Amino acid sequence: MNIISERVSSLRRWMSEHQLYAFIFPSTDPHAGEYVPDHWKTREWISGFNGSAGIAVVTANSAALWTDSRYWLAAEEQLSGTPFQVVRCSRNVATPEEIEAWISNDWNETEEKEPTAAGLSRQDYKNVRIGMDGWCNSIEFVKAYQKVCGAIVVTSLDPAPELWSGRPALPNSPVEIQPLEFAGRDVADKMRDVREVLKQHRCTHLVISQLDEIAWLLNLRGNDVHCTPVFVSYLLLCPEEARLYIDSDKITAQVREYLKTYGVQLRNYSSLITDLKMLGENTDSKQHPVIAADLSTLNYAIYEACGDCTDLPSPIAPLRAVKNSSEIAGFRQAMLRDGVAMVKFLRRLKTAYNLYPAADAKTSNTDSETNPAPKELFSEMSVDALLTALRAEQPGFRGLSFDTIAGYGSHAAIVHYEATHETDIPLEPHGLLLLDSGGQYDCGTTDITRTIALGPLTDEERRDYTLVLKGHIRLATAVFPDGSSGTQLDVLARYAMWQDHKNYGHGTGHGVGSFLSVHEGPHQFRMNWMPAPLRAGMTITIEPGIYIAGSHGCRTENTMLIVENTPATCQQASDIQSGNPPENKGQQTGWLCLEPLTLCPIDTTPIVREMMLDDEIQYLNKYHARVREALLPLLDDEADRQWLIKATEPFGS
Amino acid sequence: MNIISERVSSLRRWMSEHQLYAFIFPSTDPHAGEYVPDHWKTREWISGFNGSAGIAVVTANSAALWTDSRYWLAAEEQLSGTPFQVVRCSRNVATPEEIEAWISNDWNETEEKEPTAAGLSRQDYKNVRIGMDGWCNSIEFVKAYQKVCGAIVVTSLDPAPELWSGRPALPNSPVEIQPLEFAGRDVADKMRDVREVLKQHRCTHLVISQLDEIAWLLNLRGNDVHCTPVFVSYLLLCPEEARLYIDSDKITAQVREYLKTYGVQLRNYSSLITDLKMLGENTDSKQHPVIAADLSTLNYAIYEACGDCTDLPSPIAPLRAVKNSSEIAGFRQAMLRDGVAMVKFLRRLKTAYNLYPAADAKTSNTDSETNPAPKELFSEMSVDALLTALRAEQPGFRGLSFDTIAGYGSHAAIVHYEATHETDIPLEPHGLLLLDSGGQYDCGTTDITRTIALGPLTDEERRDYTLVLKGHIRLATAVFPDGSSGTQLDVLARYAMWQDHKNYGHGTGHGVGSFLSVHEGPHQFRMNWMPAPLRAGMTITIEPGIYIAGSHGCRTENTMLIVENTPATCQQASDIQSGNPPENKGQQTGWLCLEPLTLCPIDTTPIVREMMLDDEIQYLNKYHARVREALLPLLDDEADRQWLIKATEPFGS
Repeated sequence: MNIISERVSSLRRWMSEHQLYAFIFPSTDPHAGEYVPDHWKTREWISGFNGSAGIAVVTANSAALWTDSRYWLAAEEQLSGTPFQVVRCSRNVATPEEIEAWISNDWNETEEKEPTAAGLSRQDYKNVRIGMDGWCNSIEFVKAYQKVCGAIVVTSLDPAPELWSGRPALPNSPVEIQPLEFAGRDVADKMRDVREVLKQHRCTHLVISQLDEIAWLLNLRGNDVHCTPVFVSYLLLCPEEARLYIDSDKITAQVREYLKTYGVQLRNYSSLITDLKMLGENTDSKQHPVIAADLSTLNYAIYEACGDCTDLPSPIAPLRAVKNSSEIAGFRQAMLRDGVAMVKFLRRLKTAYNLYPAADAKTSNTDSETNPAPKELFSEMSVDALLTALRAEQPGFRGLSFDTIAGYGSHAAIVHYEATHETDIPLEPHGLLLLDSGGQYDCGTTDITRTIALGPLTDEERRDYTLVLKGHIRLATAVFPDGSSGTQLDVLARYAMWQDHKNYGHGTGHGVGSFLSVHEGPHQFRMNWMPAPLRAGMTITIEPGIYIAGSHGCRTENTMLIVENTPATCQQASDIQSGNPPENKGQQTGWLCLEPLTLCPIDTTPIVREMMLDDEIQYLNKYHARVREALLPLLDDEADRQWLIKATEPFGS
Repeated sequence: MNIISERVSSLRRWMSEHQLYAFIFPSTDPHAGEYVPDHWKTREWISGFNGSAGIAVVTANSAALWTDSRYWLAAEEQLSGTPFQVVRCSRNVATPEEIEAWISNDWNETEEKEPTAAGLSRQDYKNVRIGMDGWCNSIEFVKAYQKVCGAIVVTSLDPAPELWSGRPALPNSPVEIQPLEFAGRDVADKMRDVREVLKQHRCTHLVISQLDEIAWLLNLRGNDVHCTPVFVSYLLLCPEEARLYIDSDKITAQVREYLKTYGVQLRNYSSLITDLKMLGENTDSKQHPVIAADLSTLNYAIYEACGDCTDLPSPIAPLRAVKNSSEIAGFRQAMLRDGVAMVKFLRRLKTAYNLYPAADAKTSNTDSETNPAPKELFSEMSVDALLTALRAEQPGFRGLSFDTIAGYGSHAAIVHYEATHETDIPLEPHGLLLLDSGGQYDCGTTDITRTIALGPLTDEERRDYTLVLKGHIRLATAVFPDGSSGTQLDVLARYAMWQDHKNYGHGTGHGVGSFLSVHEGPHQFRMNWMPAPLRAGMTITIEPGIYIAGSHGCRTENTMLIVENTPATCQQASDIQSGNPPENKGQQTGWLCLEPLTLCPIDTTPIVREMMLDDEIQYLNKYHARVREALLPLLDDEADRQWLIKATEPFGS
């Protein structure tokens, strides 16, 4: 009997002790983050399946795992020989309806075979108990499940503490202060702003469970979560003070003093619920507590403890989204460092493949002829390793901002591809390498995608590359009214490729944190409705792509800063726009535009010149002039300098 | 005492008899149409104010009228010397909160002065009765009013029948059959489709109160409403039959027979409510009736009579929006006729002003120098008269599809301008004339805007004209996935002018009826969220504009047909697109594009050549080639023919 079967057996004994017929394991954690710390990978522990999306269910007699098409094959492989069957679903996660239908059906079948399996008769499904851990499930999921469930939903039990031997501890990296030089705004000011929003909504307390919101509000950073400089904790913001629920081992004396300055008390990580319950019972207080939380991200256990909780869409997200001048300066600094690493990397790669960026590759794109053998053969994984090493040489580097996506050839068409030892392939001297990567620096977070020609390309590769670039530029040159939504602008990135009946299934852009999460809300560029208004000071990526399954993929991404489009800022920030903005005629005030923060050449060799409009070429050349001007003084190696000069030469003239 | 004061006095006597302290007069009618028949212009009768948007309120001692900025001046003038004060509001209509605050305040003040004015003490506001006619008010307004009202809302009383002497009768033009040749789809088929939607929503009956929906469903047309070929009636669609509530004088023997074929019974216009109440009480019927209606357009009186009514967003609107092949053929025919009228008009106007369309006006646009004196001086109103007369010469012409907007110079900046004897101005031989007009033809409805140079232009006029044209073309050339929303595409029409910090406050486009309403839902191009999906077969206008108050305005509008973007349809329908669509690569099926239905030259003389991109010029020239090819064979007069040839000469080469 393998280890998974053993775990399932012990779970079933535990379930029987607690009169549970089934237990549901989600892929989420108590803080609803993008990356789940190992401590909460209970679904992986019970099933062995390690994909990012999947729900496992174990009943007294059966076990199943739901996952979407990205993971069907991997799940079949990982779960073979275990009690789990793979259920293929088309969404990221199965719906409560699907899971409940499966469990109740399983109950009925079980009862037919073994009428007393759970000590209940077949008619008694309404008395059956189904477990799920309230801490690791969203309010939405539990409520939706309760709505469709014909049995009893139990959210107070979790098998992991008892059964999971060798369970990874809660992450406990030390918490550090993010200097005001980079954070730009004092914690007291931030707290005042958030309390102001609370007052407007007639709330007194705010429960914050999202780790990047706590880190932002307290100007603290940690290292508890993959690629994200946050620390596991909860924060309860009260009218006069605040309570940080955290493992005290992580807090140095300096941080303790710092927190005291802002009226932040330290409490045990596990005592939030007790405090919330006490708060609810406290009727003596001069002011009756009204607790608010963003219910879209809160977990069910806390929600239950809050009693009557007001749903307040995060008051922090819109405040955090607009970067202050120190944060913006930090982004610019981070982009210079990232740009230097990228240029060094690109020079080495292109040189190894006997390519020079400004070379005219047009004449050799008609067949599958390849370049001379590369001087140094790279693979997807070695590209990742080299680029990461070059970033790590940069000052203030703290790690990657997400797992590098280095997809060569047909792998580039897999949107969330991550090379592993099993999938890694060598980069041949032809075709396209899609490289989506980013770094965490003390002063800012970066996110950049470049698609790189490694030799001759097919006509379709060149055409798709050009369509993506046209879309990128059309959106990048937009001027728009203050408060426009990303949905209103999204089509600009798609217009060119739509003419060719091509599209992409992901959003066009997302906010980027300041030495925080690389994906930061609330605003986005996307097709479906996202009303969050775009404001000056926000960061947002532009990353259209085209993915042809089994063939190739390309994406070109810069991180942008939303700036006011006035003659003054235009000169300093967006002089790469196709024209200077005119005097404001008074018709409407508050015009915004996008300034590229990312500084790195865009490969011009795959571009089909005839498909480019004059204003698109103008933008590209101004961008490259800006990249050259910014990065050249930072390069020591003459070979890097010469390469950058070539890579940023005016195109199309 | 003037006539309005007399009416208000008699109203107050009537209110006193019915124990009403106040009465509210909206600007809507029982059928929630765009144009209100005179019979229901009760607000105009009581106040004398004839603007399209306004709410009048009369209390025992005061009277007020709310209207928006378009009508502030007109209202002050029309209401001077009457008991009404003008209340300026920023929206189209005042909110229930605003009106209720005003009435309750008026009550309090009245009671201070005359404690027994209404036979109630000041504390008794909750016993005060406020009247509004349930028939002429929307459900939304009445419900919102009830919610904020501290008094009693009475919806069953209407003073008009008793007090309004000389009240215009209900319109009673004869109803005509819209031939299948134009309607394209048999009534039985349409009814089956609608009943299918009812079944999906588990409803048995549908109350239809929107006149254009009844006309569409029954393939009938009338002449009861300004610019709209509909007839006043209600329709109750039952599982087996239907009941048309209408003045029987309007129904000829032929129409009666025709309706019988489709199981449509005739009932008195006023008996709908009785029938609905009987239906609700009928518990014997084999199938319990479930009545559905689109509550966003139903009036409150009917809603109340329905009892428990299911809110079903119009099942007719999406069916009607997708035109069938006969309707499309009819549109094409109507556009040819309309194009001939427009060309004759433009030739006469341009010739009178000594202008030839293809003349190079660029050299004479730098100052205010004007052309030689016009051979024939036009005014805004005479332009309207001439164009209407030319349309009336066309076969199948049934009237205008809306009141012509002919705005010269600064009048063109007033978006809903309609020239009157008081505002009419002569067209001078310089500047821009904005002309937005349309016709109702037996086979289709047209809507076209051209902005016409009458001589030298300022640089700003030329620049704005070009920006509008660029926006028009960018949207007109879009290829987009089936089911995209108009909100997703809207920015394409604004991108160019936003670069110049210019914008317009109206939507970018709307559906057009088939010999029905010129504004037809549910889809639109607009900035705020409008999720209705765009489908092949829908009509939609493209009409960006720029309006500079006190100076000039321009707008360029074509009515478009949404078509599938396949190589086959592209050849026949959209070969004016910038390129033929490629073979579908199978990534996503169902691509749509826009084919211009409107056939009329776009004035090229104001265009700033250097601002135009190559693909924009290509589109313009292909469009003009198509206009020439379609209209030239239909013109008899050699002068018209020569003018059309000049007006459609390739631009920019």
